[in-house]
Amino acid sequence: MHNELRKEFQLERLILFSDAIFAIAITLLVLEIKIPEIHDHVSDKALLKELRHLVPKFVGYIISFTLIGIYWTIHHRIFGYVINFDSKLLRLNLFFLFFIALMPFSTGFYSEYAGPELMLYQLKVPMTFYVLNYCGAGLINYLLWSYISNPANKIIERPIEPYIVFMTKLRSAVVPLGFFLMLVAAYVVNVGVAVYVPLLIPITMKILRKKFAPPKPSLVPLHTKSKQAE
Amino acid sequence: MHNELRKEFQLERLILFSDAIFAIAITLLVLEIKIPEIHDHVSDKALLKELRHLVPKFVGYIISFTLIGIYWTIHHRIFGYVINFDSKLLRLNLFFLFFIALMPFSTGFYSEYAGPELMLYQLKVPMTFYVLNYCGAGLINYLLWSYISNPANKIIERPIEPYIVFMTKLRSAVVPLGFFLMLVAAYVVNVGVAVYVPLLIPITMKILRKKFAPPKPSLVPLHTKSKQAE
Amino acid sequence: MHNELRKEFQLERLILFSDAIFAIAITLLVLEIKIPEIHDHVSDKALLKELRHLVPKFVGYIISFTLIGIYWTIHHRIFGYVINFDSKLLRLNLFFLFFIALMPFSTGFYSEYAGPELMLYQLKVPMTFYVLNYCGAGLINYLLWSYISNPANKIIERPIEPYIVFMTKLRSAVVPLGFFLMLVAAYVVNVGVAVYVPLLIPITMKILRKKFAPPKPSLVPLHTKSKQAE
Amino acid sequence: MHNELRKEFQLERLILFSDAIFAIAITLLVLEIKIPEIHDHVSDKALLKELRHLVPKFVGYIISFTLIGIYWTIHHRIFGYVINFDSKLLRLNLFFLFFIALMPFSTGFYSEYAGPELMLYQLKVPMTFYVLNYCGAGLINYLLWSYISNPANKIIERPIEPYIVFMTKLRSAVVPLGFFLMLVAAYVVNVGVAVYVPLLIPITMKILRKKFAPPKPSLVPLHTKSKQAE
Repeated sequence: MHNELRKEFQLERLILFSDAIFAIAITLLVLEIKIPEIHDHVSDKALLKELRHLVPKFVGYIISFTLIGIYWTIHHRIFGYVINFDSKLLRLNLFFLFFIALMPFSTGFYSEYAGPELMLYQLKVPMTFYVLNYCGAGLINYLLWSYISNPANKIIERPIEPYIVFMTKLRSAVVPLGFFLMLVAAYVVNVGVAVYVPLLIPITMKILRKKFAPPKPSLVPLHTKSKQAE
Repeated sequence: MHNELRKEFQLERLILFSDAIFAIAITLLVLEIKIPEIHDHVSDKALLKELRHLVPKFVGYIISFTLIGIYWTIHHRIFGYVINFDSKLLRLNLFFLFFIALMPFSTGFYSEYAGPELMLYQLKVPMTFYVLNYCGAGLINYLLWSYISNPANKIIERPIEPYIVFMTKLRSAVVPLGFFLMLVAAYVVNVGVAVYVPLLIPITMKILRKKFAPPKPSLVPLHTKSKQAE
Repeated sequence: MHNELRKEFQLERLILFSDAIFAIAITLLVLEIKIPEIHDHVSDKALLKELRHLVPKFVGYIISFTLIGIYWTIHHRIFGYVINFDSKLLRLNLFFLFFIALMPFSTGFYSEYAGPELMLYQLKVPMTFYVLNYCGAGLINYLLWSYISNPANKIIERPIEPYIVFMTKLRSAVVPLGFFLMLVAAYVVNVGVAVYVPLLIPITMKILRKKFAPPKPSLVPLHTKSKQAE
Repeated sequence: MHNELRKEFQLERLILFSDAIFAIAITLLVLEIKIPEIHDHVSDKALLKELRHLVPKFVGYIISFTLIGIYWTIHHRIFGYVINFDSKLLRLNLFFLFFIALMPFSTGFYSEYAGPELMLYQLKVPMTFYVLNYCGAGLINYLLWSYISNPANKIIERPIEPYIVFMTKLRSAVVPLGFFLMLVAAYVVNVGVAVYVPLLIPITMKILRKKFAPPKPSLVPLHTKSKQAE
């Protein structure tokens, strides 16, 4: 019994350690938003001008908070099935966290230099970096879910509903694919247009979800009712 | 039984993740207080002068620590009733944390450029930013409590005493209202006077609490005895 | 039963939130140690010179890590008795954390400008700031322990051995007293000598511990065997 | 029973506090990777040039994340045996965390100024600093495991398989030894060659593991199946 408790705690430790990294990553970009320091001619007008310079940083904070928040929600849902762990899961999880911790940088870089037409710059280098970061995270997320959902790996208690396994895999694949398409659009058309491509992701998910409707909805477990977190 | 344990842990994970963000936000403003770096004519007098320049940052740290501490206390109390979660609670909570993580910036900005008469600057832009941040947090806090306290959402085990639901809603509404009044005072009168408006919040709460006295005090659960944390 | 579990978790949440702040505070000073950036004449000699400039920052990191580590150990031991909480405990704890989060700054400030004779500066302002920070923490620590150890407040399950209550109070009082003496020495004699005063703290504790030997050592609970963490 | 629960939580607190420090340390180096700020002639070419300047910082982030990740995995495995704690374990653990929290600095310093031939600098000072940091962590890790695995200290429930005790000691010794050899190679040959020495560590471990094969593999507990985390 005691060993069972310890194993339970060892698993919780793995998850709470991940959460600490998520929490740091999600708040890190705020550090980039420095309080404007002006010493001459301090006025409301001057401060407004300074705030305007900070707009890309605020945009970066909002995007970064939203996307890391979504990845946390996915991690939260996926690990809701996990009752066991092995060293491969540990490594995959660390690898995933590597990309999460890098997100504040790449989002900040992207939002500073690659925006829609109304923003100052539309550059390809920051967008490429950003896409590589999110595709990396998406890929590891896909591998993580494949490893967890495979009953042979004994990470879960009993086989997960095939529909859920399939839909989660689909979503894990659609997100990095959407970002990759954004990159293609940036090189083929231009960056100012490409930034809107990720908006296709939720639309695609909605279509796919209708196309692949659950076989027996009443059997879908309670905590997968949430369908918005893609 | 095992699923029950996992659900319990999934909820704890949501809460501890929130706490990590609270903890980072509450200590973040200390990073703004840089150790004075002087290299010529280093003396006690020079250091005192440097410390004086840091006064707005210390004020910011104190306000930020106090207000985030209060919001943590409220979050702690509210989630004491929660025994379940769904994706809407997750999203509302993340949205709330978004405003919490932004508080160090807006408090620092505010305390640097919008103080009482004895301080250097009394500007409207930083005060507006600050008020928007706190009103945003207050609004989401109100929505969070409305969602949690509604038995139809099945977040709580059994209906919460109506008096507690009402008083907590009242408090959630009074705080952003007080900050909003501060903003009105800043534009109508001036910033130097407006900074004192939030002091009305605890006074208003005291009056309201007397006006709406609990029906049967003996029935109020133990951990709501604390009445000071508005 | 469920309520009991929730109360248990609410208490754990309070403690883990404190730990997150401790952890951030203990690692914050590392951020002050910036990687030397030289671009011309990069050589081992130049880097050694840069490292020498960083010596006060390393000293600050070591002092800060040690003292926050000790305060964490004390917090860990004190809260080992706690089985309940109320809003006063929450506020005292937050107040204590306020001083903990400020420690990296005051230690860094102190170690940069107030060292023994062999260091560059021996100034009173940073030492005063530092002493006020540690005396503040020590005072709240004393109040925290007085509040917890008083059975009337119902924070503990059963009365704590009077000897332990007394010794912990003594220790909580000796530490800020030692720091206060350091400050007196700084003003009466000089800072270069005063920095050695805190070394008297462990010696005084040893003497006091011998003077007030435990009545029946065999009754002292297991986890108070540790006597070194003052 | 209640005391048993509290002791369990006191131990969990010690571990989760360690994890918070691990999490902060592992993400700290990202803070060093500043978003490039150029204001004149902003172009993809200019940003690529800026990114090239950040290469040592990315290398530092990757090395630091990997090594702290490995140390976390080891800490996770070692503390999987722990069911008790005393003040010596607390101190050893804090001492270990001291070196962990310093790793982002020393890795960043090392990767900036001591790389293979193709990098800009091959200096001895940063490599020495880096090696001292990792050898310090390795040594404390060795002491930590010796203390935990010794049944006389009553930290573990029942004696650990001698083979596991031995192999973990061996690994704890091989890692700092490998880093020490790197330092020797740096002074005897040169830094550009020395950086490859740590690659010998996994090879040595593989040879040693074959040489000292487990007596009865079937008896090795489940969660030590992971053999890759040296």
